[in-house]
Amino acid sequence: MLEKYPMLPSLSRTEYKKQISLLRDKLYNEQRQFRKKKTSPLLLVIGGAGKHDTANTITSWMDPRGLSTYEFAENNAAELERPEFWRYWQTLPAKGEIGIYLGAWYNRPLSDQAYQRSDSVTYERYLSRIKTLEKQLTEDGALIIKLWISISKSEQEKRLHMLKENPLTRWRVTQTEEKQAQHYDQFKTSANQLLKKTSYPYAKWHEIKGDNTKHRMITAAQIFQDLLHSHQDKNSLLTKKLIPVAPKKNNNAYITNMKLDLEKHLEKNAYKNKLEKYRGRLHELSIESIKKGVSTVLVFEGVDAAGKGGAIRRLIVAFEAHRYRVVQIAKPTEEEKRYHYLWRFWQHVPTKGMTTIFDRSWYGRVLVERVEGFATTEEWNRAYSEINDFEKQLLENNTAVIKFWIQISKDEQLKRFRARQNTPHKEWKINEEDWRNREKWEQYEEAAEKMIGLTSTDFAPWTIVEGNDKRFARVKVIKTVCEQLEQTINRAVN
Amino acid sequence: MLEKYPMLPSLSRTEYKKQISLLRDKLYNEQRQFRKKKTSPLLLVIGGAGKHDTANTITSWMDPRGLSTYEFAENNAAELERPEFWRYWQTLPAKGEIGIYLGAWYNRPLSDQAYQRSDSVTYERYLSRIKTLEKQLTEDGALIIKLWISISKSEQEKRLHMLKENPLTRWRVTQTEEKQAQHYDQFKTSANQLLKKTSYPYAKWHEIKGDNTKHRMITAAQIFQDLLHSHQDKNSLLTKKLIPVAPKKNNNAYITNMKLDLEKHLEKNAYKNKLEKYRGRLHELSIESIKKGVSTVLVFEGVDAAGKGGAIRRLIVAFEAHRYRVVQIAKPTEEEKRYHYLWRFWQHVPTKGMTTIFDRSWYGRVLVERVEGFATTEEWNRAYSEINDFEKQLLENNTAVIKFWIQISKDEQLKRFRARQNTPHKEWKINEEDWRNREKWEQYEEAAEKMIGLTSTDFAPWTIVEGNDKRFARVKVIKTVCEQLEQTINRAVN
Repeated sequence: MLEKYPMLPSLSRTEYKKQISLLRDKLYNEQRQFRKKKTSPLLLVIGGAGKHDTANTITSWMDPRGLSTYEFAENNAAELERPEFWRYWQTLPAKGEIGIYLGAWYNRPLSDQAYQRSDSVTYERYLSRIKTLEKQLTEDGALIIKLWISISKSEQEKRLHMLKENPLTRWRVTQTEEKQAQHYDQFKTSANQLLKKTSYPYAKWHEIKGDNTKHRMITAAQIFQDLLHSHQDKNSLLTKKLIPVAPKKNNNAYITNMKLDLEKHLEKNAYKNKLEKYRGRLHELSIESIKKGVSTVLVFEGVDAAGKGGAIRRLIVAFEAHRYRVVQIAKPTEEEKRYHYLWRFWQHVPTKGMTTIFDRSWYGRVLVERVEGFATTEEWNRAYSEINDFEKQLLENNTAVIKFWIQISKDEQLKRFRARQNTPHKEWKINEEDWRNREKWEQYEEAAEKMIGLTSTDFAPWTIVEGNDKRFARVKVIKTVCEQLEQTINRAVN
Repeated sequence: MLEKYPMLPSLSRTEYKKQISLLRDKLYNEQRQFRKKKTSPLLLVIGGAGKHDTANTITSWMDPRGLSTYEFAENNAAELERPEFWRYWQTLPAKGEIGIYLGAWYNRPLSDQAYQRSDSVTYERYLSRIKTLEKQLTEDGALIIKLWISISKSEQEKRLHMLKENPLTRWRVTQTEEKQAQHYDQFKTSANQLLKKTSYPYAKWHEIKGDNTKHRMITAAQIFQDLLHSHQDKNSLLTKKLIPVAPKKNNNAYITNMKLDLEKHLEKNAYKNKLEKYRGRLHELSIESIKKGVSTVLVFEGVDAAGKGGAIRRLIVAFEAHRYRVVQIAKPTEEEKRYHYLWRFWQHVPTKGMTTIFDRSWYGRVLVERVEGFATTEEWNRAYSEINDFEKQLLENNTAVIKFWIQISKDEQLKRFRARQNTPHKEWKINEEDWRNREKWEQYEEAAEKMIGLTSTDFAPWTIVEGNDKRFARVKVIKTVCEQLEQTINRAVN
C-alpha cells in the first residue's frame, strides 16, 4: 500500500526551474478550484527529514488564504486537560481549506518506538486511534495526502555538519534533531514499521527519497498535484444522496420492548426531599471530581417537550456556577457545516473537574438528521461507531459520559404543547416545526430505538427516563448522575 | 449616581404572584424584541447576596436561547497565560444575546478590599480597567445593567443558620460564604466603596434590599424591564451615521514629514548574511522568551503590495513551527460583526512563550474602515484610545507588541501590481479592490499618519519600514523584532 518513487534522472538548474514552474502553476490552479468548490477539506501530512523546508516551499507556491501549518510538540496546559486527540480536532481544516501537518499525529509513535519508550499495547492502541481519525475524516470527504521524506545516513550527517560549520546557521540544528541523527538506525526502523502499519487505502503513505532536493521537490509537488486533481475529478462525479428514511413500523422496537411504565410518579413532598438529598450528594461528588481530575459530560435527548430543559435546571443547582456549562444544540451554522459533524462537539469537551451539559447533542446525527434526511444513509449509519469512538476517548480521559433519553407518551406531549401555546412566556418553546416533528412520532421512535441499541456501551450506557411525571423524571435523572459519576470517580486513576 | 430603591409595602402571596406574572410577561416580550433586533448585546451584572437565586429566577422567566450565565473563580490554566481581562472578553454576548454575570469583574476588588489583600494602587488600577471595559462596551452599543443585592447582618445570619440546621440543605453553605459572613462588616464597607466608585453614567449600580425575597425579585425584575425597554426605545431612534471621510490633502502629514528615504537598499550578499544572522539571534531570543514567559505580538500594516507577506515569511523561519501562528485579517465575518470590533483580536492573544503575527490587524478600524466608511466617525475616533488600552493590557502581561508600517512609493506599488498580474501563481494577490484602494492613496496615507501619531506609545511604538527595496525592508523588520523583543525580555519579571 506504501507508494515509493524511483529517483528522477539528475536535472540541471534550468531544467529544474522549468519543471517546477509548470508544476506550481498546475498546483495553484488545482488549489483555486478546490477553494472555490468548498466540498472537502485537505490535510497534507509531511513527515521525515526536511519536512519544514518542503512545507515552506510548497506554501510559497500557493494562495495562503485558508492554508495553515501545524506542528505539535509537548502538550500545552489546555491540551493536557483533554483527550489526546482533542488538539488535532481543534486544527482541522474546513471544506475548501488546507491544513499542512508537520509530523502530524505520527511524531509520538515514531519516537516512542525509536527510543523504546512505550509497550506494544500502547503503541498499537495509538495507531488504531490514528486509523480511526483518518478513516472518519476521509469518509466524510476529506483528502489526506501523506508524504514521507527519507534521507540516507551519510546525507543527514553531511547536512548537520554543514549547518554546524557555519556560525550563521549553527542555530538551525536543534538538540532534538541532533539526538535523532545519533539514533539514525533506530528511527529508520521505526519509520519503516510506522509507514507500513499506517498506510491505508484511503490515506496512503508516499515515500520520497530526500537526498536530492530537486528530486524531492518535484516528486512532492507531482504527488500533491496528482492526488488533488484526481480527488476533485472524483468529487465532481459524486453527488450526495439525500434520501429521507421511509417510515417503517417496527414492532420489535427497543423502547416499545421495554414496556416503560410512563405512569410512574412522585408526590410533591417526597420529590422535594429526594431532590434536595441528591443535590447535596451531587455537590459532594462534584467536589471529589475536581480533586480526582474527573470531568462530566451529560447528554439529554428526547422528543420535544419531554422535559429536558426542566431536568437540567433542577440539576445544575448542585454545581458551582463556574464549574458547568449548558450547551444547547440546534441546527449547525454555516460555519459548522464546513467541518466533520463531530467537530463542533469537540469544541465543548470539558477540562478536568468541569461539567458540560448537552441539551441535545451529537445524537442529532442519528435522530433529526436521519429522519429529516439532512444526513445520507451512509452518513448516519456510520455515525453509531463514530459516536462510540468519540465517547470512548472521553472516557479514557476520565470523563463520565452520562446519557438520558426522556420518554413521554404522545398524549402527554399534546397536553404540553397546548399548555405552551396558552402561556405567553412559554410560547417560544413551541413552533410549527414541533407540530411537524410530532407527525413523524413513529419515525423518531424508531430512530431512537436503534440509537439506544447501538450506542449503549459499557462505558457510556443510556438511561431511559419515564417522563410523563416531571417530578419522577427529575429525581431519576439526578439520582442516575450521582450513581454514574461516583463510579467514574472510583475508577479514576489519579 | 448609585440608585437605591425604597422598600415596597409588604405583599401577600397572591398579590406577589400577580405582580410577578405581569412583570415576567413584559420582560419576556422585551427580550423577544431584543433578540429579534440584534442591535446590541446585554450584560446583566448581579452582585451581593442571593445573586444565584436572583439569576436563576430571572432566567427561568426568559427564553434561554442566546442567554448564558457566567461566574468567575480562580483563573484556569488558559486564563493564567493571558491578560487578566482576557477571560471576560471570551464570554461577551453577541448583539441580541444576554450574558448574566454573577459578581462579574467585581469579585476580586470586593474581597481584596474586604480582606485588605491589595494596596490602593493595584485596587485603583483594577477599577480603572473595569471602567474602561464598561465604557468601551456601552459606547459600542451594549446595555449593561448592574444590580447589587444587600442584606442585613441579622438576615444573613438567619439564612446560614437555617440552611445549616437542615441536613438536606447543609451543603449549600460553602466555606467561602461562611468566611464572608464572618467578615460581614468588612464586606459591607468594601461593597459600599466599590459601588460608589464604579457607578458610571453609562453603567450605574442599582442597589436592592434583599432581606425580603418578594421585594428583591419584584424590584430586580422591574429595573431590568425598565432599562431594557428604554434602551430599545433609544436605540430605535438612533441610526448609525456612516459617512465616508472626505478626501483631504494634508501637507503636514506624518509620513510625508518623515521624509523617508525609500531608496534605501541592500545588496544580495549582505542581505543573505544579515538575514541569517538576525534569524539566529531571533531564534535565541525566542528560546529565552519561553523561559521568561514572554509572548510576542507582531503587527504588519501597509498599503497593498507593500511586502507584508514576504517579510513575514522570511521571519518565521526563526521560530519553531508550533510556537507561532500567522493570523490574516480580512473583512469581519457576519459572526464577528455581532461583537465589539476588538473581540476577534482578543481570541488570538498568545499564551506565554508564543508568537502571534498579524498580517493586518485591529488597525483596520482606523485605516480601511475609516476610509471606506465602514465605521462611523465616532467609532474610528474612539478606536485610537481603545487600541492603546488593548496593547497596554498585552504589555502588562509580558507581551512584546511590535508594529510595522511598511511604506512604498506609489510608483513602486504600480510596478508590483503589474508584476502580479503577469505571474499566474501571483494573480490571487491582485484584484479590482486593490486598484480601487490605490485611487484612494492620499486618504489611506492620511489615515496612516494619524494612526501612527496617535498609537505610537512608549510601550508599543510603530516602526516605519522603507519598503521599495524588499531586501532592505525584510532585514529592518527582523532586526527590529530582535531589538524590541530583547527589551521586553530584559524588562520581564519572571
